[in-house]
Amino acid sequence: MTRRRAAIALVMATLACLATYPARADDGYGLWLGPAADTATGAEIEVPRRSPTIDRAAAELRRSLPHLPAAVMLATSNASHLVMLDLDTRALGHEGYLIREVKIGNRPVILVTGNSDVAVLYGAFSLLRHVRAGESTAAINIASAPAIPLRLLNHWDNLDGSVERGYAGQSLWDWWTLPDFKDPRYDDYARANASIGINGTVLNNVNAKAESLTAPYLARAAALADVFRPWGIRVYLTARFSAPIELGGLKTADPRDPAVAAWWQAKADEIYRLIPDFGGFLVKANSEGQPGPRDYGASHADGANMLAAALRPHGGTVLWRAFVYADTDPTDRAKQAYSEFRPLDGKFADNVIVQVKNGPIDFQPREPVHPLFGAMPRTRLAAEFQITKEYLGFATHLAYLGPLFEEALDTQTGQARGQTVAATLGAISGVANIGRDRDWAGSTFNQANWYAFGRLAWDPKLSSQTIAREWSRQTFGNDAQVTDTVTAMMLRSREAVVDYTGPFGLAHLFGPDHHYGPGPWIADLKRPEWNPVYYHRADSDGIGFDRTASGSNAIGQYAPTIAARLARPETTPPQFLLWFHHLPWTYPMPGGETLWSAMVRRYDHGVAEVEAMRKQWATLKSRVDAERWAKTDAYLGIQAREARWWRDASLTYWMSLNHLPLPAGSPPPAHDLAWYKQQRFPFAPGAPH
Amino acid sequence: MTRRRAAIALVMATLACLATYPARADDGYGLWLGPAADTATGAEIEVPRRSPTIDRAAAELRRSLPHLPAAVMLATSNASHLVMLDLDTRALGHEGYLIREVKIGNRPVILVTGNSDVAVLYGAFSLLRHVRAGESTAAINIASAPAIPLRLLNHWDNLDGSVERGYAGQSLWDWWTLPDFKDPRYDDYARANASIGINGTVLNNVNAKAESLTAPYLARAAALADVFRPWGIRVYLTARFSAPIELGGLKTADPRDPAVAAWWQAKADEIYRLIPDFGGFLVKANSEGQPGPRDYGASHADGANMLAAALRPHGGTVLWRAFVYADTDPTDRAKQAYSEFRPLDGKFADNVIVQVKNGPIDFQPREPVHPLFGAMPRTRLAAEFQITKEYLGFATHLAYLGPLFEEALDTQTGQARGQTVAATLGAISGVANIGRDRDWAGSTFNQANWYAFGRLAWDPKLSSQTIAREWSRQTFGNDAQVTDTVTAMMLRSREAVVDYTGPFGLAHLFGPDHHYGPGPWIADLKRPEWNPVYYHRADSDGIGFDRTASGSNAIGQYAPTIAARLARPETTPPQFLLWFHHLPWTYPMPGGETLWSAMVRRYDHGVAEVEAMRKQWATLKSRVDAERWAKTDAYLGIQAREARWWRDASLTYWMSLNHLPLPAGSPPPAHDLAWYKQQRFPFAPGAPH
Repeated sequence: MTRRRAAIALVMATLACLATYPARADDGYGLWLGPAADTATGAEIEVPRRSPTIDRAAAELRRSLPHLPAAVMLATSNASHLVMLDLDTRALGHEGYLIREVKIGNRPVILVTGNSDVAVLYGAFSLLRHVRAGESTAAINIASAPAIPLRLLNHWDNLDGSVERGYAGQSLWDWWTLPDFKDPRYDDYARANASIGINGTVLNNVNAKAESLTAPYLARAAALADVFRPWGIRVYLTARFSAPIELGGLKTADPRDPAVAAWWQAKADEIYRLIPDFGGFLVKANSEGQPGPRDYGASHADGANMLAAALRPHGGTVLWRAFVYADTDPTDRAKQAYSEFRPLDGKFADNVIVQVKNGPIDFQPREPVHPLFGAMPRTRLAAEFQITKEYLGFATHLAYLGPLFEEALDTQTGQARGQTVAATLGAISGVANIGRDRDWAGSTFNQANWYAFGRLAWDPKLSSQTIAREWSRQTFGNDAQVTDTVTAMMLRSREAVVDYTGPFGLAHLFGPDHHYGPGPWIADLKRPEWNPVYYHRADSDGIGFDRTASGSNAIGQYAPTIAARLARPETTPPQFLLWFHHLPWTYPMPGGETLWSAMVRRYDHGVAEVEAMRKQWATLKSRVDAERWAKTDAYLGIQAREARWWRDASLTYWMSLNHLPLPAGSPPPAHDLAWYKQQRFPFAPGAPH
Repeated sequence: MTRRRAAIALVMATLACLATYPARADDGYGLWLGPAADTATGAEIEVPRRSPTIDRAAAELRRSLPHLPAAVMLATSNASHLVMLDLDTRALGHEGYLIREVKIGNRPVILVTGNSDVAVLYGAFSLLRHVRAGESTAAINIASAPAIPLRLLNHWDNLDGSVERGYAGQSLWDWWTLPDFKDPRYDDYARANASIGINGTVLNNVNAKAESLTAPYLARAAALADVFRPWGIRVYLTARFSAPIELGGLKTADPRDPAVAAWWQAKADEIYRLIPDFGGFLVKANSEGQPGPRDYGASHADGANMLAAALRPHGGTVLWRAFVYADTDPTDRAKQAYSEFRPLDGKFADNVIVQVKNGPIDFQPREPVHPLFGAMPRTRLAAEFQITKEYLGFATHLAYLGPLFEEALDTQTGQARGQTVAATLGAISGVANIGRDRDWAGSTFNQANWYAFGRLAWDPKLSSQTIAREWSRQTFGNDAQVTDTVTAMMLRSREAVVDYTGPFGLAHLFGPDHHYGPGPWIADLKRPEWNPVYYHRADSDGIGFDRTASGSNAIGQYAPTIAARLARPETTPPQFLLWFHHLPWTYPMPGGETLWSAMVRRYDHGVAEVEAMRKQWATLKSRVDAERWAKTDAYLGIQAREARWWRDASLTYWMSLNHLPLPAGSPPPAHDLAWYKQQRFPFAPGAPH
């Protein structure tokens, strides 16, 4: 009996060790801010004057900053005992910060200062980034001020909780339980935004419902504004242009009608009573079915200025979108916004900002910049980017958008000497990729796009590579192999999506409605410009959209120096070749291969790049927490399969037109064209409704 | 300078203490299972034979069980070294468990056993409940077997991620990333269900889409089944009856057509290849627009038996809902299901279960039990309860449903001596209240309804009070004041909702579509039985639905002893008075007051009970973690306001009919009837689409 017991005990002990159930790791909720550090070893934080904002700055440092050789002081530049330091903080403006080791009474202090409480908050987050990246605070001296004054998220969130083009779960805003219940997550959201310098958020969809301006919803927006205020974040709302009819019972929404103007003035007054620092309205007018001033023969400037007048007494801003194209306008869709808005330059009130998408079509994996940048010198402009990946694989595909943002912001407009797109901006908007998913953005790597948007909005001169490294270190820690590998994956990722969806400037080849899979063959949608064939114009002879003088002459909307380069395929950047030119399949590319051969090579390269990312990620299995590793690995598996699907479907279709063989070594598509055409996605997330 | 520094330092130190930012507490994700305990002090767990299920049982005990005087052994009853114990486990069946202190080789061991791995798992969770409630394990001897073999959740989850009548966020199932990505939350879901004995889950909405039966969705369901299997949980799917037309291209879905039967047989075969332990189909047929066998003149039995034949070779079950009522049937809606199904008793195949809602209408805060219970002795029946609070205030109102479930399960059918509803059941289904909200069910107290459903499904003889205490201790810990207060709140909560929405058996007075606020005045909807006025039949003289022989004679569907009591208002239980009788406003109630006066008193009581709950909760502020306390407090504030709204709107409307004054001391409604009629909820959650 004793021997038997001993044997059992041995077996038990062995099994006890084996029978562990895998532990949960990091679910990604902490974003780049990570979990709280052990406060017992924290830094000494000094706060001469408290405020809700300064308190948050102090709490951040107490939560995450390790012990430092010197105390950290958080104080605005007008604090009395900073006077003797004689700091010149004028260049910091309202939001810029200074982090500098100073002596206060012979004692070394790491001073975090600025001309406002929120500047100090931004400085605190900057100091955290600095320290958490392993940098020394000895003789620290960092000064930074934002290049663009308004740095906004645009939430395309509907009042029913759905999110148009959202792939990270429901809307964060639980309108049903607001204003009574303020989910602690609202605070976490504002904190994350403040940490990267976002200073405004548009709560609801540009495809707006008038109800968002009713008293119950304004009370709810006000509750969110109360949560966001200490973090330096202002609330904006979209405004449905016909709201005076729908809510006010007026017969018209004509912006020139005094009753309409009075209705908006009263509405603005009502809003500011609830939200004294309300940011303003974002308006999608006369675009894709939305009402607007053109319904009454008035101009976009008439509409925007009427709203701007209502906001002016309160200091609010109108963001008026330039994303317009008309089913009655037969000209190249890429030209229509410029044609409509360029003549209005100088006609907008000074609290109007015209918000222009980064490219002339619609958030494609790659577009040339919009010709309006630099072309409206007497108008304040905003650039609108999409952080959510409507056309880049939704939440599952890994596509780091830092390079996309950077490419657009750094582009020379050609309109003024050395002028970049970034230099033309009074505001920047990013269509949010945020929802109620636990990891906020649908994947860990999608968090990097939110991060990169904020960082570039603050400082467009940062490189996307620098941001990728910085984000990786904040998110995964300072393991050099992780940082190097993650950064390398990120930097190849967006180009991979371009390659497997539409190389050489091909665009808008997505299946309709869902915008997920390939649909280059689609030609039967009602409006011509809804069809992929409108954009690629491929036939048996060639492919591409002739936007030169022999075609739509969209190049004529760019500055002459730019237009001259785009006029000829030889001088057009290869990544925009087929955006601007219709070329034969046999067009000789630099190096001698045909266009067709080069296209196939790019598709194959896109597929190979995803496989390369998978392999890179596999090397990090033991270096990244299990939960984030496994989800990313699963998503890369999806992306690998779907990159191949994109490549195969596209090539099969092109071959049905050009009847050319695949170059040697390029594998045949897995299915015939009919199979690809049959794929359906009836419940794809993010579709508008 | 030194004094100044000292002064500054003093101020700093003071402020450093003050400037703490409130810390996050418990977000409710852990449900009643709580956070993991410190494993360093854990119990000794012995596992003679491992399996995925036993491993999970062992992990649970290692995670949460404190050190015990004896080792715990997890073993099925056929384990070789249990033979000498000569345990009689026959009465335990397949799922029942035994927890008993035994001697194995003179060593005391707490044995957790049963006739299957899942029985051991259930035993492990039972042991955990026992210990976490502070009970001793000395001479422990617990044997328990489930009273109802199939204990199912029904998810009304749509393929687009929305949840019909769901108030806790999106569907848990992320169909878009399945089957590639298995969210760890799927495992947590299964674990929580296993801990309360749930052994099956219907993944999708009874208002079904045919697409749920296509290959892509079956692969996704199979991935979930793989996660759930070790937890003893089988996957079921709803089946759209017309799928052979929509997916198979057949001209008919007539269940008597051999091609239709062959299509379903092939579909069942396909499913079982992917999910060998697939549970079966849940079907809503010929109900609220859903297709079904009646479309072809065939009976519900014809339809159910055809599907049952397809599942029979694989051991699957058809759950066929009895929730039918027809716009072509002018008789009392409460009678129609019985009229249609009672004649089919004995005609259903033995792998068909007819699933009957607890009451004859639709999940009202209170209904009498459905007359079909006990009336189909030759048919297997399931009771369908709603755990989600479609008619009880969505996620925000606190309404513990244990008493509602208990009341129905304990009701005598009158059909056989001593027979309760529970005794008639071969299955029990609960319409889930679970979504992607962090706390799963939209509030902490909603978690108790999920818990109570599972516990009562296992053992309908448990009292709802016992379950409330047990849940409170698992959820909030063993602080006696918390347990007592929480239990007291829970036990008064459902009756409060009954009182402020519809006392004395009034029902279905909700605004249409949203089913949230009061709409007793609504009379203009297309089908008569969609209108609240259909149910209350109030006019200047009286109120209530005459279901006696002088009216619809619905009472004739109950057993004669029951019907005899219901025939007269004097012998009808007061809580069902107006369900069965139309009575004058001046009808004298027991004790002498008029019906109207008694009604007003109940409305006022409902409002007062919510205020009482608020006060009780306030006493727990320092005893419950901050996050769960604050959310519950905010929700109770909403409920208090809305209880008053319900009371005021209802009384205002009744007074517009009966022109009676309010009894002395009862406060006048806050608004006039027109105001209440104007309230709109265009974006209420959970509406079908």
